[in-house]
Amino acid sequence: MHDEPSVTVVRLGHRPGRDERMTTHVGLTARALGADRVVLPDNAGQSQETIRDITDRFGGPFEVELSGSQKALIRNWEGTVVHLTMYGERVQDVETEIRDAHADEPLLVVVGAEKVSFDVYEAADWNVGVTNQPHSEVAGLAVFLDRLFDGRELDREWEDAQQRVIPKETGKQVEPVGEKE
Amino acid sequence: MHDEPSVTVVRLGHRPGRDERMTTHVGLTARALGADRVVLPDNAGQSQETIRDITDRFGGPFEVELSGSQKALIRNWEGTVVHLTMYGERVQDVETEIRDAHADEPLLVVVGAEKVSFDVYEAADWNVGVTNQPHSEVAGLAVFLDRLFDGRELDREWEDAQQRVIPKETGKQVEPVGEKE
Repeated sequence: MHDEPSVTVVRLGHRPGRDERMTTHVGLTARALGADRVVLPDNAGQSQETIRDITDRFGGPFEVELSGSQKALIRNWEGTVVHLTMYGERVQDVETEIRDAHADEPLLVVVGAEKVSFDVYEAADWNVGVTNQPHSEVAGLAVFLDRLFDGRELDREWEDAQQRVIPKETGKQVEPVGEKE
Repeated sequence: MHDEPSVTVVRLGHRPGRDERMTTHVGLTARALGADRVVLPDNAGQSQETIRDITDRFGGPFEVELSGSQKALIRNWEGTVVHLTMYGERVQDVETEIRDAHADEPLLVVVGAEKVSFDVYEAADWNVGVTNQPHSEVAGLAVFLDRLFDGRELDREWEDAQQRVIPKETGKQVEPVGEKE
């Protein structure tokens, strides 16, 4: 987010068709909950398109990239690497250290899909479990980002949106966003 | 969780095939993050089976039910009803009130899939947005539960598990859980 080191989410593995929605949800969750950028596998063009479309309509800044070399991205990352996995250390035990590290340098959050190979565990500065239970990479990412930003991401303001939702007790209210004066 | 009013998650809408993984992830997220029970549409038997299998292996208590009358469940709920929707009030504004309500009585958390009809908005005590941005019902549920329980769900203990994951800095460690003495 604005005025702090960047947060990039990288999604490992994508089976077109089968993983389309999960990959799209990883990207939309990254955007909505304060990350600056998501890097998807190079066969996830359809997810990229959906996430870009949402960013065009609801605002940014948020980048969506495709990459064929995500392991190189992880290996060569200049900053901190966190790998979310149910086998990792408990998020409640390591979140303060990770927050401190992110205050100083860019953070890469690795989200797996299929089986993640051992070199990813080794390349990570932290392997982190949002519970050590099997659930959902989208849920794990969401809780991790909310804790990383300590809830600040919920107050984020969006630039260049075409429309915005007005929070309401009941029903739906969506307003067009006018040009800046 | 133990010693407090129950939390039930109800998933509205399910298209077999297309929604299988999302519905399964809703259920697994509910289980991992402290809910007591999930109620799925009656055509979501495959998701039910997966969630039950995980509960058998990794522990409970956690109930997975199918129901053909989820709107009646919502309408007749004896307790508090929260509907998660990007059109709702901001979670950071209403979470304290909801936490207080849950201290007194059972909570039903409604998670939509396709378009949610207006009567659900009206039946809810709170319509709540985890951001007013489009992202993922799984992510919204995860952040909501983590905030509802104030992180206590991460320390939950599991009963009758066959195996458990030991948190590790690197790699994977899974142990069989022995019979109780």
